[in-house]
Amino acid sequence: MHVADAPHLRVLRLLRDEGPVSRAELGDRLELTRPRLLAEVERLVAAGLIAEAGMAASRGGRRSTLVELHPRLRFAAVDLGASSIDIEVTNGRLEPVATYREPADIRSGPRHILQRVNELLHKARTDGAFDRLDAVGIGVPGPVSYRDGVPVSPPIMPGWDRYPVRELLAREHGCPAVVDNDVNIMAIGERHGGVAHSVDDFLFVKIGTGIGCGIHLGGAVYRGVDGCAGDIGHIQVDPNGPVCSCGNAGCLEALFSGSALAREALAAARSGESPALAERLAAYQAAANQAAAENSAGGEPDDDRPEPVVAITARDVADGAAEGDVTCIRLIREGGRRVGGVLATLVSFSNPSMIVIGGGLALLGHVLLAEIRSVVYRRSLPLATGNLPVVLSELGSRAGVTGAAVLASDTAFEQA
Amino acid sequence: MHVADAPHLRVLRLLRDEGPVSRAELGDRLELTRPRLLAEVERLVAAGLIAEAGMAASRGGRRSTLVELHPRLRFAAVDLGASSIDIEVTNGRLEPVATYREPADIRSGPRHILQRVNELLHKARTDGAFDRLDAVGIGVPGPVSYRDGVPVSPPIMPGWDRYPVRELLAREHGCPAVVDNDVNIMAIGERHGGVAHSVDDFLFVKIGTGIGCGIHLGGAVYRGVDGCAGDIGHIQVDPNGPVCSCGNAGCLEALFSGSALAREALAAARSGESPALAERLAAYQAAANQAAAENSAGGEPDDDRPEPVVAITARDVADGAAEGDVTCIRLIREGGRRVGGVLATLVSFSNPSMIVIGGGLALLGHVLLAEIRSVVYRRSLPLATGNLPVVLSELGSRAGVTGAAVLASDTAFEQA
Repeated sequence: MHVADAPHLRVLRLLRDEGPVSRAELGDRLELTRPRLLAEVERLVAAGLIAEAGMAASRGGRRSTLVELHPRLRFAAVDLGASSIDIEVTNGRLEPVATYREPADIRSGPRHILQRVNELLHKARTDGAFDRLDAVGIGVPGPVSYRDGVPVSPPIMPGWDRYPVRELLAREHGCPAVVDNDVNIMAIGERHGGVAHSVDDFLFVKIGTGIGCGIHLGGAVYRGVDGCAGDIGHIQVDPNGPVCSCGNAGCLEALFSGSALAREALAAARSGESPALAERLAAYQAAANQAAAENSAGGEPDDDRPEPVVAITARDVADGAAEGDVTCIRLIREGGRRVGGVLATLVSFSNPSMIVIGGGLALLGHVLLAEIRSVVYRRSLPLATGNLPVVLSELGSRAGVTGAAVLASDTAFEQA
Repeated sequence: MHVADAPHLRVLRLLRDEGPVSRAELGDRLELTRPRLLAEVERLVAAGLIAEAGMAASRGGRRSTLVELHPRLRFAAVDLGASSIDIEVTNGRLEPVATYREPADIRSGPRHILQRVNELLHKARTDGAFDRLDAVGIGVPGPVSYRDGVPVSPPIMPGWDRYPVRELLAREHGCPAVVDNDVNIMAIGERHGGVAHSVDDFLFVKIGTGIGCGIHLGGAVYRGVDGCAGDIGHIQVDPNGPVCSCGNAGCLEALFSGSALAREALAAARSGESPALAERLAAYQAAANQAAAENSAGGEPDDDRPEPVVAITARDVADGAAEGDVTCIRLIREGGRRVGGVLATLVSFSNPSMIVIGGGLALLGHVLLAEIRSVVYRRSLPLATGNLPVVLSELGSRAGVTGAAVLASDTAFEQA
């Protein structure tokens, strides 16, 4: 049975999500009696979590004092990707006051990566972003035991299995910390400040280096028994498909993901099947050759020099499709058909009210969306799809840090 | 946020699930102070919901009075199938005091079917099963708006769309009523008194006339936004498969369900591919011919008489498989492979802690289970299947009425 959260949580969340509010309006909105509200406000002021913010406009009677989250509040939001660290330090309203982004290989292990996270946060302090942190939220690209605050058997994170991420961050920064899966935090972010705003039941599908799904049911993230709910990248969609990094054949992400698309695009460029991609490949090669020639300028000409490695990316495929290149459009549609087939199954199963598509391949835009929609609507029951928007993430690459900040603030508020 | 339910609910559920308990033990178990407990007990005695039941054995100090659910309490549990009505009238502990089962075609419409349900319940009253009912719980074979107590666009229930089932039953029997999907009540039943006892996150997969899935997440049934979560029978598993009753091609239940299996078994019997099924078909035909001959005894012999229609059932396939008939075993395995493929996807998505297989085709037993397990374990992530039992329903055909009784009692207790 769901019941209302504790009054102090509701006060803090409302001020976080809506900004300064008068005492009178707070009482109305939260349906708290005046003495109860005043006691809560007094307690939260004393705890340094909220502050007075001047007088509200009159509502006809006495003017009421505005209250707001204390301007000093700071949350650290960290989004670890397979190859990047994203950090935002935010104020109480989750607005960024400092942002850091740098490449980092998650495979270099938890000591190295967390040390770098700590260095960036200490730099933020030196830069004046905060005096002290109220909570740290972090997302990692693998399954997580949310209860224990540790990654659990994460396939692409060697050395991270059951590493005490939450404990170490909490100790380092002297505040509560919370650890979740990267796709879950993106879903939470999109629900806080994106297209899924206040939607209770939706799926957030991340299509990037891999494919994963954040599951929001009944207003909360559903994480599954072992923390790996939503791990849809290794669903088998074609028993005769290519071998996946997991060892099975024909997994969804072996057929459609950033790397799968790059591989197929490169083949289409080399074979000349796609004029748009062939043209880009030639330009990249020319640029790389020139750079290599400049590097070896003055040395002997070296005809045995290997051809520089250049890559075609999802961006090239998106641009090619926008120019009308038939192969680029086909590659995107085939991918959309694969993802759509899996989503049709998940829609029949979970009957959500929205599907949000995010991650790096969301840049494939409406060609991808149109194909996913077409398959989902055709294959799922009419009742489940009668009113089912399939839309792109609004927050894009900020979805993860936004969700990590929400989790951090919830954790701080709960422990207040 | 989940919090403890109201004390009176916890008292009533404990007495329902465990029988008579002493006041002292009740207080300990529910962590209620003695005055609080005594007040609750007094209130529930006054409301006629619980009664004293003698003295408990001494625990060293004063002997404590036993309390139990009032012996007069009665719940009606109704399970409507595509072709049957199952009713149990139970006492407070959900033990049946009267049972009715008869064939009925759900397509004959809500007036006819509910009238028959009411007649059976009035008969139960006349038979002495109860003086008055405390609640009615009913499951129907289609999507339900649980909140509104009505079926919603149920594909195999013409005339039932938004029919006020809950309201009419409540009015007829002068007590609260509750309506749910048939697979959901089976899942609830299995969790109350079957193999999923106290398991919080599991999938109950019913394979019968159709295929459906009851989803239990975090200790509660998940029904989806439109009440059709778990409607997995129409997931497409083979785009080149047979056309389904829904109009799409290759749906799971078009490939494996009671009717699909009967169709394939009949073909295998006629072609002689399966000796075991051919033998059974011949025996059924001989019996039917003899019956027809006896009916027309004394009349002219009629060589144009059409051959009587006889059917091979799942039971025949199960018996054939037990005798080692290769075709029967193949038919079951192929079905298990289809179901297993879909379940592997749902396991990756929802990371449950158990899968329960129920419905009419559960009689296919271990050959079916072994194939489902094999596909699920091979295709899902090791983390999600490391400790994932795939087991048969324990309650069998009683799962539905058991769950309907649980729902009825919960509804009565909540309104107490």
